[in-house]
Amino acid sequence: MKKIIILLFFISTSIFAQIDRVEPPFWYAGMHNPELQIMFYGKNIAENEVTVSNNIVIKDVKKTENPNYLFVTIDTKDVKAQDFVFSFSKNKKVAFTKKYSLKQRRENSASRKSYDASDLIYLVMSDRFANGNPKNDSDKSVFEKGNRTLPGGRHGGDIAGMIQYLDYIKELGATALWPTPLCEDNDKAYSYHTYGQSDVYKIDPRFGTNEEYVQLSSELHKRDMKLIMDYVTNHWGAEHWMMKDLPTYEWIHQFPGYAQTNYRMTTQFDPNASQIDAKMCMDGWFVKSMPDLNQSNPLVNTYLKQNAIWWIEYANLDGFRVDTYSYCDKKGIAEWTKAITDEYPNFNIVGEVWMHDQAQMAYWQKDSKIAAIENYNSYLPSVMDFTLTETLAKVFNEDNGKWNEGMVNVYENFTNDFLYPNINSIMTFVENHDTNRFNEIYQKDFSKYKMAMTLLATVRGIPQVYYGSEIGMAGSKDKDGDAAIRQDFPGGWAGDSNNAFAKTGRTAEQQQFFDFSAQLFNWRKTNDAVHFGKMKHYIPENNVYVYFRYTDSKSVMVVINNNKESKTFPTNRFQESILNYKTGNDVLSGKTNDLKNDITIEGKSVLLLELK
Amino acid sequence: MKKIIILLFFISTSIFAQIDRVEPPFWYAGMHNPELQIMFYGKNIAENEVTVSNNIVIKDVKKTENPNYLFVTIDTKDVKAQDFVFSFSKNKKVAFTKKYSLKQRRENSASRKSYDASDLIYLVMSDRFANGNPKNDSDKSVFEKGNRTLPGGRHGGDIAGMIQYLDYIKELGATALWPTPLCEDNDKAYSYHTYGQSDVYKIDPRFGTNEEYVQLSSELHKRDMKLIMDYVTNHWGAEHWMMKDLPTYEWIHQFPGYAQTNYRMTTQFDPNASQIDAKMCMDGWFVKSMPDLNQSNPLVNTYLKQNAIWWIEYANLDGFRVDTYSYCDKKGIAEWTKAITDEYPNFNIVGEVWMHDQAQMAYWQKDSKIAAIENYNSYLPSVMDFTLTETLAKVFNEDNGKWNEGMVNVYENFTNDFLYPNINSIMTFVENHDTNRFNEIYQKDFSKYKMAMTLLATVRGIPQVYYGSEIGMAGSKDKDGDAAIRQDFPGGWAGDSNNAFAKTGRTAEQQQFFDFSAQLFNWRKTNDAVHFGKMKHYIPENNVYVYFRYTDSKSVMVVINNNKESKTFPTNRFQESILNYKTGNDVLSGKTNDLKNDITIEGKSVLLLELK
Repeated sequence: MKKIIILLFFISTSIFAQIDRVEPPFWYAGMHNPELQIMFYGKNIAENEVTVSNNIVIKDVKKTENPNYLFVTIDTKDVKAQDFVFSFSKNKKVAFTKKYSLKQRRENSASRKSYDASDLIYLVMSDRFANGNPKNDSDKSVFEKGNRTLPGGRHGGDIAGMIQYLDYIKELGATALWPTPLCEDNDKAYSYHTYGQSDVYKIDPRFGTNEEYVQLSSELHKRDMKLIMDYVTNHWGAEHWMMKDLPTYEWIHQFPGYAQTNYRMTTQFDPNASQIDAKMCMDGWFVKSMPDLNQSNPLVNTYLKQNAIWWIEYANLDGFRVDTYSYCDKKGIAEWTKAITDEYPNFNIVGEVWMHDQAQMAYWQKDSKIAAIENYNSYLPSVMDFTLTETLAKVFNEDNGKWNEGMVNVYENFTNDFLYPNINSIMTFVENHDTNRFNEIYQKDFSKYKMAMTLLATVRGIPQVYYGSEIGMAGSKDKDGDAAIRQDFPGGWAGDSNNAFAKTGRTAEQQQFFDFSAQLFNWRKTNDAVHFGKMKHYIPENNVYVYFRYTDSKSVMVVINNNKESKTFPTNRFQESILNYKTGNDVLSGKTNDLKNDITIEGKSVLLLELK
Repeated sequence: MKKIIILLFFISTSIFAQIDRVEPPFWYAGMHNPELQIMFYGKNIAENEVTVSNNIVIKDVKKTENPNYLFVTIDTKDVKAQDFVFSFSKNKKVAFTKKYSLKQRRENSASRKSYDASDLIYLVMSDRFANGNPKNDSDKSVFEKGNRTLPGGRHGGDIAGMIQYLDYIKELGATALWPTPLCEDNDKAYSYHTYGQSDVYKIDPRFGTNEEYVQLSSELHKRDMKLIMDYVTNHWGAEHWMMKDLPTYEWIHQFPGYAQTNYRMTTQFDPNASQIDAKMCMDGWFVKSMPDLNQSNPLVNTYLKQNAIWWIEYANLDGFRVDTYSYCDKKGIAEWTKAITDEYPNFNIVGEVWMHDQAQMAYWQKDSKIAAIENYNSYLPSVMDFTLTETLAKVFNEDNGKWNEGMVNVYENFTNDFLYPNINSIMTFVENHDTNRFNEIYQKDFSKYKMAMTLLATVRGIPQVYYGSEIGMAGSKDKDGDAAIRQDFPGGWAGDSNNAFAKTGRTAEQQQFFDFSAQLFNWRKTNDAVHFGKMKHYIPENNVYVYFRYTDSKSVMVVINNNKESKTFPTNRFQESILNYKTGNDVLSGKTNDLKNDITIEGKSVLLLELK
């Protein structure tokens, strides 16, 4: 009888033992960092002793003030891919067990290549690109259901839609896809942007499944294209499952009451900044619905590192874009970034460092000499050229050729290139999902679009284009809010009257924008002078900007005339770039210019000359 | 008879031998650099062999393509102060001789102190401050005569006038005087600004004599004040005596025809700049009347170094301001600067680096980590905070408290302080002789003047004030050209109806400006927390900016309310600065604030609180 009772007790604890979550759910053998911190979550799980089978070594077991969490660190050094079992014991009796797997990595996983200046990145707002699977629009496991009539609602764009239109993206000439975050965001409203994630190990069911995400990656790779994950280290959503039962009070930055960041990122390096301002910038929440993660806490930082690495391995990723990078704990985010790039030395990560001063942005790039003044190194391979974006948003309306207006401002953006430790690795863009759309600013002026895109495609850096601009989509954030710049791509929804994915469905205007974009972007693939060549530019004279990208064997000459009227100028000033080249063949018009003669360029236009 | 003829011949060559110039005219024993390059100028002087008496060693004799110059370098190492004789021989016979002196240096000349953040510099336009000696207004040796009716003419201001009003400058609270250049500028018109010098070893006779300049220095030193020379390395005037008979074609930058600088100083560090643009910036002339000196030529560079050092020794100078610093040959000017500071390790030199980006300005300060990216070091101790000036010229009209307007812009100027290798040594100013006058921009708004001047007197750096602002002088460069910002100081000319030098002669408005300025600037002398103390500032909230300057034993709290209406705010946010201080005594109003209570500040006003 006694034995039976004990047996029943044992069975019952085994059966009813609460292991609600194990994260990472599995891992990989042979990682650079052999330490693996596994988080077990379950009711009072911390009351148990943990052991593990297969001679795996437990290096550390961390408990927090919340008994529902156990952080178990094992040593995977020299451990081959295999399954093994964790046993949880109470009073020296095994209460329950949990199987865990170390999987085999893909070949050359650690040395995987990433995106670089030879790529052109296509950024899509995941909920707004294409609804490939209308059945997943309103999953029962999440609060917000599909409702395309709400500007800030869930419209139904998904991974299936992206896969469906990969050939379109390839036809356009993009070589990499950056979808906005795809992990679950279970906010009750405005969840569509997905920056407030509620489960970072799970694709949002309205976007698809983890398996579909892997499929997206593999479909891209089939097309010789790359997948960039939009990773969010700074915060999660208020609906994240952990927020209901925090592992530790310190997991997020808490204040007596809610505190919002002051958004003054300069406090992170300003020697005169008060501690309170610096702390409020870094620790304050981006918005109320996004609890601010404490990257200074080793448990949190390790959790985030492993989650990021897990996705790279699991979905065979080609790179990251990291949201609100410079709002994270400064030391913590550097540690996180270093951990990722220690695992994947070629892996590119572009951080969103949205500042208005080049020295301040350059501060955040890996091995910055400017950050070294304060003994800081972010280890972040890439930052974004926000000052270029700001400049491009105004110069094409500056026709008067004043000393400090027009193309001179574009020229000046490149005069500070030496501030960046790795100028070829910075991301360039005329717009993204947080700015006004270029075609709105310039009222769909096709000539200005051509000037800007040609510039983007030919200056140093990694160009990023924003979905829809290639068919002339406009939209003003200032006037109509975020929804205006995150419209549904026409044709992405069954029954759309306008289908811009197909030539047959496009308006004449859309076709004009698309033809030009596809010609330019596909040409860009073919010319490595605009990928990694040197740049030489000439002070704009009369609002005409001339620059060259060149290697030892190739040279491209770009001429941008920002005046309304045409301009003619002699070429002798450019002799140190023209060298022995004889002709410049305009990629866009097909016309040939004899480089000994004067060059004439129409008003508000661009020449893209391959020198021969 | 034969002997007599030979004797006569010898006498005649001795007598008529043309040594028109010897520069430096004399030198000093015991300099750090023992090499002295003496330039002898005279008709066909290069045909002679040179020897020297007193066992002085000639290290080098350089001849150029112009036979009228000889550059003789002697070694002064261990040579005591003495006179000696150079002999010039032809066909082994002494043709003529020239006496030369090495003089005794003043005690501790090499270790002289200089100006720093404990000083407040008073900048005067030398021709426009005070006419102490009307007799020298129209010297016969120079073209342009005095004519006060011409806005761009010679008005008669002189060194005698400066000496006459040194007590006024001291009463104001300034501790150093920076007169615009005083060496001879013999341009036929617009010579008053004196930046186009025609003889750099001679004070312009309309300003006085070399001896009067020495007297100015000594009168300043008697008053415990300092003299800063405005030195011009980049160019001389077209009327410089050497321009009529260049020592060598390379002495100045010459082109086939005249070429003006493109003024794009970014070309000096821009890795993408074309060589032609960089060359035209550096070698092009600032204006047509100012031939651009070739600091890359060792003869020129040594000439300029020695000229600068000569003035320091001769006039017992306390510092330099160097005009158009970043237009000079980049390597050459660094070499020049290093030579000066090698001789005088504490000597301060502030260079005019007029750029609009802090990284670009910081580039030019000695030991800049930013310049080190390109392996450059200017050795220039100080640069000017032009971005602060630009900011102050607009913020006080920005009343709306928007995210990026008003005091936030002032705050942001200081967030990049870490870019400067020596932030305490940068010069701060609200205006100078090349900008619009502050009181013109703000239409003599006294409250805005008080805000700006209090800021200038309390932020890091070396404050510079421009003559006349302290009595409310206005003037718009944009509207009326340079003359409008370089007016005669009222009272500086006999018979002036308004004499602002004396309390009895001032208008009520002038007295109001002067009283405030004198109170503030004299207080500044007494508080070392605003000289070399640390700074801590707080993100402006609602257009109110609060910052502290502090040492271990002192603290000053500055509050600037840039709103039209008064503001009240609690002090708890500043606890890390307030520490155990109990009260803040307003230097300007005499009122005491209890730091436990809320602080109330009137609209458009400033509190300057000494914490107790």
